[in-house]
Order: sequence, then C-alpha cells, then structure tokens
Amino acid sequence: MKVVFIGDIVGSVGRDAVKRLLPWIKDKYQPHIIIANGENAAAGRGINAAITRELFEWGVHGITMGNHTWDNREIFEFIDDEPRMIRPANLPEGSTPGRGYTAIKVGSKELAIVNLMGRTFLPPSDCPFRKADDILSELRQKHKCILVDFHAEATSEKIAMGWHLDGRASFVVGTHTHVQTNDDRILPGGTAYLTDAGMTGPRDGVLGMERESVIRKFITGLPSRFQVAETKWILSGACVEIDEATGRATKIQTIRVDEDSWIAS
Amino acid sequence: MKVVFIGDIVGSVGRDAVKRLLPWIKDKYQPHIIIANGENAAAGRGINAAITRELFEWGVHGITMGNHTWDNREIFEFIDDEPRMIRPANLPEGSTPGRGYTAIKVGSKELAIVNLMGRTFLPPSDCPFRKADDILSELRQKHKCILVDFHAEATSEKIAMGWHLDGRASFVVGTHTHVQTNDDRILPGGTAYLTDAGMTGPRDGVLGMERESVIRKFITGLPSRFQVAETKWILSGACVEIDEATGRATKIQTIRVDEDSWIAS
Amino acid sequence: MKVVFIGDIVGSVGRDAVKRLLPWIKDKYQPHIIIANGENAAAGRGINAAITRELFEWGVHGITMGNHTWDNREIFEFIDDEPRMIRPANLPEGSTPGRGYTAIKVGSKELAIVNLMGRTFLPPSDCPFRKADDILSELRQKHKCILVDFHAEATSEKIAMGWHLDGRASFVVGTHTHVQTNDDRILPGGTAYLTDAGMTGPRDGVLGMERESVIRKFITGLPSRFQVAETKWILSGACVEIDEATGRATKIQTIRVDEDSWIAS
Amino acid sequence: MKVVFIGDIVGSVGRDAVKRLLPWIKDKYQPHIIIANGENAAAGRGINAAITRELFEWGVHGITMGNHTWDNREIFEFIDDEPRMIRPANLPEGSTPGRGYTAIKVGSKELAIVNLMGRTFLPPSDCPFRKADDILSELRQKHKCILVDFHAEATSEKIAMGWHLDGRASFVVGTHTHVQTNDDRILPGGTAYLTDAGMTGPRDGVLGMERESVIRKFITGLPSRFQVAETKWILSGACVEIDEATGRATKIQTIRVDEDSWIAS
Ligand SMILES: [Fe+2]
Ligand SMILES: [Fe+2]
Ligand SMILES: [Fe+2]
Ligand SMILES: [Fe+2]
Ligand SMILES: [Fe+2]
Ligand SMILES: [Fe+2]
Ligand SMILES: [Fe+2]
Ligand SMILES: [Fe+2]
Repeated sequence: MKVVFIGDIVGSVGRDAVKRLLPWIKDKYQPHIIIANGENAAAGRGINAAITRELFEWGVHGITMGNHTWDNREIFEFIDDEPRMIRPANLPEGSTPGRGYTAIKVGSKELAIVNLMGRTFLPPSDCPFRKADDILSELRQKHKCILVDFHAEATSEKIAMGWHLDGRASFVVGTHTHVQTNDDRILPGGTAYLTDAGMTGPRDGVLGMERESVIRKFITGLPSRFQVAETKWILSGACVEIDEATGRATKIQTIRVDEDSWIAS
Repeated sequence: MKVVFIGDIVGSVGRDAVKRLLPWIKDKYQPHIIIANGENAAAGRGINAAITRELFEWGVHGITMGNHTWDNREIFEFIDDEPRMIRPANLPEGSTPGRGYTAIKVGSKELAIVNLMGRTFLPPSDCPFRKADDILSELRQKHKCILVDFHAEATSEKIAMGWHLDGRASFVVGTHTHVQTNDDRILPGGTAYLTDAGMTGPRDGVLGMERESVIRKFITGLPSRFQVAETKWILSGACVEIDEATGRATKIQTIRVDEDSWIAS
Repeated sequence: MKVVFIGDIVGSVGRDAVKRLLPWIKDKYQPHIIIANGENAAAGRGINAAITRELFEWGVHGITMGNHTWDNREIFEFIDDEPRMIRPANLPEGSTPGRGYTAIKVGSKELAIVNLMGRTFLPPSDCPFRKADDILSELRQKHKCILVDFHAEATSEKIAMGWHLDGRASFVVGTHTHVQTNDDRILPGGTAYLTDAGMTGPRDGVLGMERESVIRKFITGLPSRFQVAETKWILSGACVEIDEATGRATKIQTIRVDEDSWIAS
Repeated sequence: MKVVFIGDIVGSVGRDAVKRLLPWIKDKYQPHIIIANGENAAAGRGINAAITRELFEWGVHGITMGNHTWDNREIFEFIDDEPRMIRPANLPEGSTPGRGYTAIKVGSKELAIVNLMGRTFLPPSDCPFRKADDILSELRQKHKCILVDFHAEATSEKIAMGWHLDGRASFVVGTHTHVQTNDDRILPGGTAYLTDAGMTGPRDGVLGMERESVIRKFITGLPSRFQVAETKWILSGACVEIDEATGRATKIQTIRVDEDSWIAS
C-alpha cells in the first residue's frame, strides 16, 4: 500500500497548494490513501466544516490535527460526527470531543491512523508514549498498516517516539515545526520515520505567517497580530510504501514542492 | 568561496566520523573553509582542549558552540586564547569568556563567523536579533563573506533570523536540534539558509544519546544518566558557495552521509 | 518617608477596592506616596486612559506595570505622555514606548520608582539584574529613596534580585503571582523586601479570574474565555518606612484586607 | 484534630531547625499529627534513609515529596518499604516506586495524606486534577480528614486545585516555591487552604541555596554549583484544626519562625 502524508496545511495559500498539487501527487506517487494535517487550515488557526469538506472532496482521506485543534470553535459542532478527523489521542478521556485514532478504508486498502501530541515545550497532556502503547496494542489486533502523526516540538521526543514504536507502526511522521526534516529512513523494525513532514503553505513567511510581524515581535516584544502570509506556496509531505502482509514499510521518500519549481516542471 | 559547515559533533562517534570523512569532503566539495559546531564533542557535553586541537588538525578551521558551551569546565582554561573558537555572541558582555564572532583566514579566503543562541525554549540570553544587527554592522565594514550559526530550538525563531539577516549574511545555518532540515534555499537577498544542519554523531540514538535511557526517561520520568550511543555514525552539514565580490550565496547543498551508505560508495 | 505599595489591581472589582479603601489606607498608614501595580486594571488585561486617570484621582501617585502592559492597545496612545506610569525597564531600548523608571514627587517627598520584569517562566527580555545595575547607578546620583517593583514569576529570581539590590534600593517588592507572600523583612543592607505584594481584586477567583473557567481549562485543556470574577474583593500591598537621610528602610508591614473583615472593622 | 505541616526542609540547616523547634511546636500547637515536606532534606536534593529515620524520630509522622523526590538515588532502596513517605501521586503507574497517598494513624487520630505535583513550569506528569478526583473518591469512602500537599510552581494551578478540592479535602497546602504565602483561609466548603507553606532551611540564601552562586548564575548564565547556604534558619509551615466528625477545617494559622526571633522568645 502506498500512503501520502501532507504536512500542516496553512491557510488558503496552503489549501490552494493542496488543490492544485493533488492531481499531480496522485499521478506521480499513485497513493492508495492520502492523509493531511489540518490544524492550521483555517487562516492558520484550526479548521472549519467547509474546509474539511473541501479537503475530502479534493482527495484527502483523513485529517490529523495538533495543538491548534480547537482554535476555530466551529470544530466542536462537527468533530464528533466526522470519523475521518483525528485529533491528538492523549487528551483527557471523557471531556475531549472527537477521536484520537481510527481506521480509514479506501477501496480494498485500510490504514489505521493515530494522532498524538508531544509534551516538551507544549501544553500538558497525557503521556503520549503510554497512550501509544495502549492504542497500538488495540489496533494491532486488527491492523497491520498503521500511521502515527506525532505532533511535537522537540526532536528528542519525536525521535524517541519513532524508536519506541519501531516494529509496531508502519509510519511515524512528525508534524508541528512546519519545517521538513531531512532524516527520512526506515528503522530496523520496519517503521518508516520522518521527524517532521514540514508545512504546506506560504513559502516566504515564518511558519506560514507574515514574516514582518513575527520578526517585529521577536525584536520588540510588542503585541503583533499574526496573519497568514500571502506568498508563493510550498507543499511538504512524504510517501511511504507499506508491505500489507507484514505492516513493514519498504520505502519512504520526502515530498517537497515549491511553487516556482513546480511551475517549471 | 566554498564553505562547508558540519553540524553538532557528538562524542567520539561524531569525532570519528569527522576524521574519516574530512578527506572525502575536501575531495568532493573542495571547500576553502570548514567550520563545525563542537558543543557536544566531548562525550556529548561541551568540548575540551585535546578535542579542539584534533579537530583543527583534521582540517576544521573554526568551531562554533551553543547552549552546551560551558558543560566541560576545561573550556574556561583555553577559550580566551583560542581565536578560532566562537561561542554565542549574545551572552553578557564583561563576564563571558571567549568571543562571539571572529574572522577566519585560510589562504587568500576570509570568512567572518558569528555564533548566536535563540531564546525560545532555551535559557535567557541577550536578544539575538539586536545583537546580530550590532555585530553585522561592524563586520560588514570589512567583510563580505559572513556565516552565522544560529543555535536555537524553535523553527520560528530560526526562520525569522534567516529573513532578518537576508542580504546581510552569506549563510545563516541553524544548529541545536540535531536533525537536519530539508529547507536549504537561497533567500531573495542572497543569504543561503538552512534551519538546521543536523548532527554528526551516533545515527541510532536520540540526538546522539543512548535511546533506551532517553525513552525510559520520557515514559517514567525517573532520573536517567544519558551517555553517547555506540552506534553507526551519521555526518550532517551543508556546503555553500559564496560570491566573494558581493558576499551573496550562489549555491547551497545539504550534506548527509551515513556510515552504511558511505561504505557502500 | 512612608510609602504604600498596592499589588496588581484586577478589573473593576479591584478598582472598587482601591477606591473604597484608599481613604482608610491614608488614615491608617499615613503614606506620603502611594504606588500601585496596574497591569490588570482593565478587565484583567492591561490598563486604559480612563482607569489611569481614576487611579490618580483617588490618590495613587504612580502606576507600575508588568507582562500585561500592552494587553490593552489604548496604552500606546498615552503612555509616552504619562510620566507617572512605569513599564518594565528591561525592554528593548528604542522600540519600547514609555519609561522604565522615574521619580515621583509629592509635596516635599520624592521617590524613585523602577519597574523590572523577570525572565524565568516569562517571555524573553533584557537581563533585569544588569538593567537594575545601570538604572540604580544613575538614580543613586540623585536619589536615596528608591522603590523597585520586580514583576516576576519565580521566587528564586525575585529573592536573588532582593539580595542583589540590598543596600541600593529602599524597597524591592515583587508582583505578578497575585498571591501575597509572608516573607516581608528588611535585608541587612537596609532594603525592605517582599517576594509578592499580592493581588487587589476578586477574592474568590483564580488570580482574579472566574475560577470555573480556569479549573475547566486545567482539567480539559479545551479553550476557555477567562473573565474577571464577580466576587468579594481583597486588597493586598505593603507599607514601608524609609529613612530619607540614608534611603534605608526602617519598617515593612504587609497589607491584606478582605471585604468581609474590612466591613466588620 | 490538630495537624501541623512543615514546608520544604532544606539541608542540614533545615533539619536542625526541625529538630530544635519540634518540641516548641508540639508545646505551642499541640498537634496530633505532624507532616513535613522532605524533598530537599539531603543537601537540598532529595532525601536518604538516615535523614528519613531522624525526621521520624524527632516526631514527624509523615513525609511528602515533590519534583526532587529522586535526586538522591538512595531513595529507591527504601521508598517501597516506608509507608510514611508519600511521593507525588500523579506519576506513571507501574513504573514509579513508592506511594502517592496513604493514611497515617497516630493514637486515635487518622489522617489521609495525598501528594500531587503541578504541571505548569514543571516536567510533564499525569493530570493532578483528575488524579486528585480518583484518589479522593477512594479515600473518602474511609476517611474524613484528608491533607493534600500540592507541590507546584504556579499560583494559578495551586489556587485552582484548592477550589477544585474545596469540600473534599480538609487541608490543601502548596509546597515547592520555598516562600510562604500570606493567603491562609478556609474556603466555603470547609477546606483550609494555603498557596505555599514556605521553606524550612537557610533564611538568607535563595530558596535555601547560597545566594552568591544563584545571583551569579542569573547574571552571567555561566554554570554554578549550588550548595545549601550556611546561614541562620527559618521554619515555615501551618497548623490546621479539623473537625473529625465532618472533615471540615475550623482554623488555619501559618507558622513562620526565624532563628533570631525564636531565640529572642
Ligand atoms: Fe502546525
Ligand atoms: Fe502545531
Ligand atoms: Fe548540540
Ligand atoms: Fe545545543
Ligand atoms: Fe498581574
Ligand atoms: Fe503579570
Ligand atoms: Fe522544595
Ligand atoms: Fe520542589
């Protein structure tokens, strides 16, 4: 099975990139299942119902989230009824709407998806390592092909999670830093690993936001309203091939397409 | 001028990688100047006099540091007398030993080097943006070719610095996260930029440390002694070409060599 | 000289407490100068022109601020023209409106006021210790009586500042945690010290905000809109006596009045 | 029932204060049960078997801990066999030695003790609010008199916990900041509350450590070895009276004794 994962989609610039590039991605990578991180899809802050619908229409099969899950309050109205949206699983049971893992079936292919959030340099949450253990031991009774989006800041926590799940997940992909890492590899147990998929959004901002405001904030400390930058786009992600008989990844390659280079191609 | 920058060297595994690969790097990239980050060279914590000497002997021309600068107390004995060692410049003037920027001359080529440290998710220090302004306005009176190693955790702060210095530095390279990023580019003003050069050290640890201890620490919270992992190595860095007439970068390429692939080559 | 300092005034509940209690405070403590921290005076977030005017009308002579200085954007319109408002001094020179220290004269009494902000668990700023050194060496050429409001989170940083300034300031008072500490004392060099003056605002909230929202946020992690609690008030502060010939404090006592006990008295 | 709680005992200076003052405390407050926080008892870092024994010999009936629980590795040898030592309860089940709550019986009086740790500005742990709910619903089946030591940094988190447990615990006392707060009160549901009990240790250090080293570290950022200060002592704590029929607190008073004033008395 081939799976494409698309990193944090930021604002309309990021959504436009997804819309334009998905046909090309389908053609080039021939993925059976496409998953995208949507925590910044609505103007950089959360996601809403219309955008969710659009992403599914364009060909995304599942949407993972992160620390910005609740930024747009509209999500509370539909997350419980949208089985293809997955928010971090290590949030309080009972009080957190939505689901932290699910299985997505496309034709004859089925992929389990887990979303977890890190704790280093991020707000408190339940232990992602122990939560991963619980979820994977349940999922692995039925599934061999499992993707984990570990939404985290610190490279130490992400790499530790990759090794912790090696042999139990097919693909552990990091999100949140909005910068793709150049460390794609397949760990000895068969888990494809990438510390961060990178961002899909404005190429010339800072994490997708207007760079002047962000720089001014760093220098002056004065309050700034951050808006999504209106620049050319970049699309970032990865394609992984999974042996369905074993759940082991056999290939991982990063996807990094920038508006200029793509037009040229 | 061609410059090779080598990311955080971790322990003896990282030093061995540097020693073995430098001849190959010199041959392949033909660099005029080689700079390396050495903040983890001594068993993962700081650097000492013997290791410093070795790195220079093998062909490194300048060593930048970071938040681990002072981990090995031996550095206090020699840093003031070692003009080729550069520690973060945005530390308190008056009380901080060593220098935060310098110029390194190799044959007819001269490169100014600046080391700065971020403040997001790191201990307090002076503002790296304003400090960069001060240093660059001084350096640019004499130098066109300037490399800035911005040792920082947050991608937002690093990207903001890249844009802040675009047109004023030849190369802004991030260090500290120990994971190479896949976002090498030349910004419109002529500054080569890479969010993180990545680590040169044990490939199968967590940031170079034994992964079992790190994972156990994340899961149990109990105290752990972290030691440099004894695994195969990875060497990470970048090569940049600078037009000496203007100081503008004309090319940037990442370097990522792993023990297995190198032996194969 | 007798000085009364009033801790962080929170919202209309806190302002009401100040208005009602100031006559009683003047009567009981006979202060020559009254200083209050106003960073939360406008609905918990910053301050505005009308509230500033009111506080001065009621008898406050100077207003210090903190990390919430800029929360209400109206402040940018008047801070440069209001010499009795003091925001943290260790903010970037050049780009920060307002002033970080001043002298306030009431009748024949003159008190220099300095506002500084901590860096532990707070956003980056310039070093408050070195900034204090600079300001005090300037102020002490003209002034003996000096009050420093050190707006900081960590007890370690606040106590360190108290000792650092012992013998150079008349009174080092902490603000920001909204809980009065029971450690008022006069240090050996003659500096009155109190780790935190405490809050002047709703007694039964959490730091002055509605407690249900805050507790829900801690438990669920879901977004919450925090509003100032509508409960009975508490007024917190301290009274210090300073020997004007030497600048040394001779007495410090905490002020803690709660709506119930005050009505009773 | 009368309960005395003694705040974080720091090093030999703190232990000496406990030894000397316990007879006076017993005489003055007539407590049935004495609990002390011991996380800094061994040279400021953790506790060991000999010190634990001593504290019990002198009359302490139970010892609570905090983020420094494991600093002295000796604790791993005896914590499982010492039922009167209580470490934070919201640590991972299964992998954490010791217990997070217990009941201590002295004569005919029985007090349940819970130790919890905050998450704001502290390392990740399980949610202390939900953990408190679980433990209290168990304890309250058998116990009316319950003391909770909430070891936390942020005043917001501590006050929120006080209100969260109001009516379910007899006494919620904060520890960790080493500065006693002046906000002792009985909440409407009958829970005695104090944000921080304060430190029992060297009066003239910074949180009990030598102040010169701490100040130098704040100013220079250079590494410092912190040692317990050799100064006069302060003992900090609180005495609470609990109605055993209901578990409601009827009185709370802070205890703050300093070597000078005590000798004088
Ligand atoms: Fe994101
Ligand atoms: Fe995120
Ligand atoms: Fe490093
Ligand atoms: Fe580092
Ligand atoms: Fe405040
Ligand atoms: Fe504040
Ligand atoms: Fe402590
Ligand atoms: Fe503590």
